[in-house]
Amino acid sequence: MLDGLFRPRAVAVIGASNNPFSIGNIVIRNLATYGFKGPIFPINPKSPSIRSFKCYKSVLDVPDEIDLVNISVKATLIPKVITECGEKGVKFCIVHSAGFKEVGEEGIRREREMVELAHKYGMRIFGPNSQGIQNADPDVSVYANFTFVPMKPGNISLIAQGGGMGEILKLHLHNAGLGHRMYCSYGNECDLTMPEILEYYGKDEGTRGIMMQIESFKDPAAFLRVASEITPHKPILAIKAGRTREGSVAVSSHTGTLVDQAAMATAMFRKAGVVEFHDSLTMIRTGIALSTQDPPSGNRIGCITNTGGPGIQAVDESIENGLTLAKWSDAGRKRLKETQYAEASLGNPVDVVATGGPDQYFAATDTLLKEEGTDMVLVFFVTAPFVDLDAIAAKISEAVASSDKPVVMVVETYEKHYDLIDKLRAGNVPVYETAEDGARSLANLYKYTKLKNRPREEPPALEVDRAAAETVVKRYEGKDVYLPQLDAFAILAAYGIPVPKVAGINGEGDLAAAAAKVGFPCVLKVDSADVIHKSDEGGVILDIGDEQALAQAYGDMKDRFAGVNPTFILMELKPAGTEIIIGATASPGLGSLVMFGLGGIFVEVMKDVIVAVAPLSRPEAREMMTGIKGYPVLEGVRGKAVDLAAVEDLLLRTSRLAADFPSIVEMDLNPIFTYPEGMAPAAVDVRVKVR
Amino acid sequence: MLDGLFRPRAVAVIGASNNPFSIGNIVIRNLATYGFKGPIFPINPKSPSIRSFKCYKSVLDVPDEIDLVNISVKATLIPKVITECGEKGVKFCIVHSAGFKEVGEEGIRREREMVELAHKYGMRIFGPNSQGIQNADPDVSVYANFTFVPMKPGNISLIAQGGGMGEILKLHLHNAGLGHRMYCSYGNECDLTMPEILEYYGKDEGTRGIMMQIESFKDPAAFLRVASEITPHKPILAIKAGRTREGSVAVSSHTGTLVDQAAMATAMFRKAGVVEFHDSLTMIRTGIALSTQDPPSGNRIGCITNTGGPGIQAVDESIENGLTLAKWSDAGRKRLKETQYAEASLGNPVDVVATGGPDQYFAATDTLLKEEGTDMVLVFFVTAPFVDLDAIAAKISEAVASSDKPVVMVVETYEKHYDLIDKLRAGNVPVYETAEDGARSLANLYKYTKLKNRPREEPPALEVDRAAAETVVKRYEGKDVYLPQLDAFAILAAYGIPVPKVAGINGEGDLAAAAAKVGFPCVLKVDSADVIHKSDEGGVILDIGDEQALAQAYGDMKDRFAGVNPTFILMELKPAGTEIIIGATASPGLGSLVMFGLGGIFVEVMKDVIVAVAPLSRPEAREMMTGIKGYPVLEGVRGKAVDLAAVEDLLLRTSRLAADFPSIVEMDLNPIFTYPEGMAPAAVDVRVKVR
Repeated sequence: MLDGLFRPRAVAVIGASNNPFSIGNIVIRNLATYGFKGPIFPINPKSPSIRSFKCYKSVLDVPDEIDLVNISVKATLIPKVITECGEKGVKFCIVHSAGFKEVGEEGIRREREMVELAHKYGMRIFGPNSQGIQNADPDVSVYANFTFVPMKPGNISLIAQGGGMGEILKLHLHNAGLGHRMYCSYGNECDLTMPEILEYYGKDEGTRGIMMQIESFKDPAAFLRVASEITPHKPILAIKAGRTREGSVAVSSHTGTLVDQAAMATAMFRKAGVVEFHDSLTMIRTGIALSTQDPPSGNRIGCITNTGGPGIQAVDESIENGLTLAKWSDAGRKRLKETQYAEASLGNPVDVVATGGPDQYFAATDTLLKEEGTDMVLVFFVTAPFVDLDAIAAKISEAVASSDKPVVMVVETYEKHYDLIDKLRAGNVPVYETAEDGARSLANLYKYTKLKNRPREEPPALEVDRAAAETVVKRYEGKDVYLPQLDAFAILAAYGIPVPKVAGINGEGDLAAAAAKVGFPCVLKVDSADVIHKSDEGGVILDIGDEQALAQAYGDMKDRFAGVNPTFILMELKPAGTEIIIGATASPGLGSLVMFGLGGIFVEVMKDVIVAVAPLSRPEAREMMTGIKGYPVLEGVRGKAVDLAAVEDLLLRTSRLAADFPSIVEMDLNPIFTYPEGMAPAAVDVRVKVR
Repeated sequence: MLDGLFRPRAVAVIGASNNPFSIGNIVIRNLATYGFKGPIFPINPKSPSIRSFKCYKSVLDVPDEIDLVNISVKATLIPKVITECGEKGVKFCIVHSAGFKEVGEEGIRREREMVELAHKYGMRIFGPNSQGIQNADPDVSVYANFTFVPMKPGNISLIAQGGGMGEILKLHLHNAGLGHRMYCSYGNECDLTMPEILEYYGKDEGTRGIMMQIESFKDPAAFLRVASEITPHKPILAIKAGRTREGSVAVSSHTGTLVDQAAMATAMFRKAGVVEFHDSLTMIRTGIALSTQDPPSGNRIGCITNTGGPGIQAVDESIENGLTLAKWSDAGRKRLKETQYAEASLGNPVDVVATGGPDQYFAATDTLLKEEGTDMVLVFFVTAPFVDLDAIAAKISEAVASSDKPVVMVVETYEKHYDLIDKLRAGNVPVYETAEDGARSLANLYKYTKLKNRPREEPPALEVDRAAAETVVKRYEGKDVYLPQLDAFAILAAYGIPVPKVAGINGEGDLAAAAAKVGFPCVLKVDSADVIHKSDEGGVILDIGDEQALAQAYGDMKDRFAGVNPTFILMELKPAGTEIIIGATASPGLGSLVMFGLGGIFVEVMKDVIVAVAPLSRPEAREMMTGIKGYPVLEGVRGKAVDLAAVEDLLLRTSRLAADFPSIVEMDLNPIFTYPEGMAPAAVDVRVKVR
């Protein structure tokens, strides 16, 4: 329970100072300015008072119990003050001070010792190198943070790994006339973790939705678990910083880890039902809509405008973001015809024209909101000089208030009429600056609906021979090697993944036996750790038709690879099918990620792949398949569809195998031939690496 | 010359009224409020004065010469007032009134008659159903428009087909503290056309750049010609409304034309060097940068921040929009090391950290601007509570002022410090709200640089037998039919496009002769307007090896298509190659558009195509080839590259053919087999439609 952090009874500030530019001073000012409901205790051995608050030499001198302490003394003084806090019975220490993990080895040691010390007293550390926390709940009103954005109560709670991004989230809610609920920017995350905070937000009744910015996941599995529990009842909107190679290097120089976690983040977000964003303002605008509007129950948008151009922008943006245009019922059309001017357009968008007044706007808004076939409404309003603006705003608010469907407004005006925007916002209508922003925000709310409504299932029980696979895998654990082909195929076969018949060859004497096992026509392959690109290096001979050809091929191959002391395998020749690729990679802290795409050029040139967290449930496997752009190829653009159930089964089995054996750090089924129903697919080439 | 419109000596307002909600009244108010330098003459037979201006019964009663008249009387009164304006010697009439083309047949007739009448007097009509024009040049200061956004002098000129979008363009420049130069929203475009206005803007010395919104092109060729002349010395930023099917329907209901012109617009923009946008605020933000900054000469961005997260956002956004991160010289690194705090990050972004003050910001900005390897700089600045904000703003402005390189700033702050933003803007630095917006704006300026620096060439002279092609095409003109295969191949061959050997077959007797001509193995194809999907309907027999097989195949095919009275052709069998597709479509008002993509699935599933205006120059043909995502396939991802020069040649010839014969309304070379150098490609199937 994080009540001691987010709902503290009293706060002490260690490192309080009369220097108005010091963190300690600013924290006290913020706590006081925003009316913290408990007492504030500055701690400074040298000052009798700070900002009108009596100052204490040590927390141990404070007469009250203290839940939370803000610490901004230099890193070397930390052990002393932590000890005192522990003795005082403090529950949470926010450590603003820098000089820890981010400065290297010595900082890491210092950080570890601080946590160990705190835990001795049952105390938790937030930070270090962190901003702090805020809770705008009027019962608490705690601004235990040194930043500057004004605080007022709202219903969106915020988490930002980067403090600057946290400010941006708060700031733009503030600029839209909204407040926030809880806020934190957690810095080095040495003890108290982001998922713990997220879990607390999830359980907070005053939190309607969560926005977050993440630079790196310390405990991805915990995040995935917690986020998955929250999204069925509360939206999470998130940005993972560093989606380009250059951006992830920037993350690294900033936080001290160098892992491109972007693909992992996207996979986790999708699995957990988190709506992912790349652009901060786009996320914030969605958060603004979420603050007052319910996510739409379907994807049909109705638009109203009093001028054509922005209506088109709204339509283009809606369609490109997955919405469809609502169609009016006969009754709806009739009412529009009766209420709008002759020159109005009654399609979607409804164009009430620039002379459209309060009655026209009311009727259009009310009609669309009452249409069964409309899930959400966007109302665009440029303040034309011919009409009664106040009355229009009032009538739109009236229509909106009588409906539960989400509505956003776009008001184009200038400073003279900004009071209109304030009035609309006071009526709980989100107001945007452009039609595109309004449409995108609704479309993003709908993305939450879609994620929430996906079927959620456990990964299915599969008939697999885990023991057989384990026997093979165990032999290589600790070795960090690619497995010989026969063993790699054996592992797949143990998990019910269809593979061609294969046989090893140890010299000419084995040829006949091997051929008897796999049959003709067959394929001869070199199998050596020294030969990476087998086909390119002449290590694969296809379509060997008889024993004579086999002997010839074997002789050639032996000569070719005489230098690398290779082994060889013989493999059943499978007819060419529609190629797919399934891969798996170990993802530290999470388990394994599984990758899916079509063969060859689709992956290599078009980068048309999708990555998900293993093991997959059936709906997740289907979502992967249908999620690639090339999916129509599997459905059979020209000619027959491949056996989609078989592809789904392959995904389930491969992901289960990766999940069952964390020591399989890399697995590549490339290509897998797939065929129309009635013929089992075949993983004709495979690479498995065990660590 | 449009001086009479944009620099009128006197303006009359016909339909002036004392009703403050009337267009006539508002136009007079706007003209007066923004200090029009000439006299204003209200015209109304019933009022002695309007808004303190003496009112006249007719323009004929006005003592002065009048260049421009704003007309807002109802459509039926137009002929009378136009006649009077003509007799008065007026040069331009802005017709605000509706009731023309947009209401159907009667309106179209009324519009035509109005233009004919005006032309009798050498007068031009702007509109009808239009807003009007503005020119903020202090020498003129004419606000001959009924809208509300305040006007002040700026250097970006604006054209908007949709009046509401025009307001948005003006408004957001205004909100950023900027004005604009000229403005117009031209409504039905019945006489004076958008390209004429664009041309005038292009020649205006006070116009540094142009922003435009277009819903439909009345004269695409004129636009292309004019825009191409402007962009070498002045950027044009443009949005074409209606890029989705739904959006283009919305355009249609709004303006009365139903053509999806989105692909044409993109092709014209690319050819003309116009920077295309989809999102209105993104375009406006680029316009804001353009108002004070030069487009960067290269794509290397340097970033400065005082907090990590937004720096990462800036990097991700820069990279995804085609910029690269600048690297510092040794001298630059040294100066950064000497001037920044120990905890600062000295890579790119430079993180001066939250305690970074005026000296740190100055040194970082000045260093980066002086780096030879840096083409542009983004400075992020969150108003941390520890530092002297005014001094930082002043020092950044100082550093920026001493450099010609483009700089944008991002300031994260709230209302208390908005004066900082005003001060920075007063120093001609564009200021944005988020790092992404700043980075995107710079990247979009660079897009202009890139377009401007492309090699511009005329379409090359090609050796073609135009007469031979013409003989064939002429036979079908006026018939609106698909050509028989032999004729289609003949046209291609006349233009030097490599095709297989082909021969017609008129009965069994022809088989031997045909086979002798094309050789074995060959392909038998049905050729009938009734058989559209030849392959799917069994109308193609491949790989016929000898005369016996040919006789058999011919017999089968005759039976199969007995019902449609078909003809047949025999064709040389070409080996399978890397498939490409080239198509051409007539584009009314422009000529022809040519389309390029890879074969089959790349076009059908991945929609990976590029469209350009015919005829192509060599650089344009190369740009098409390299512009598709699948280009690496041609370069040979695995295996050999195809003969790229041959593909370029195919594009040049096909585009020349389409351009030479406007009656070829549709042409589809699908597929064309291409091969490595040394083997000519072959257009193995072709459809040509002549109207």
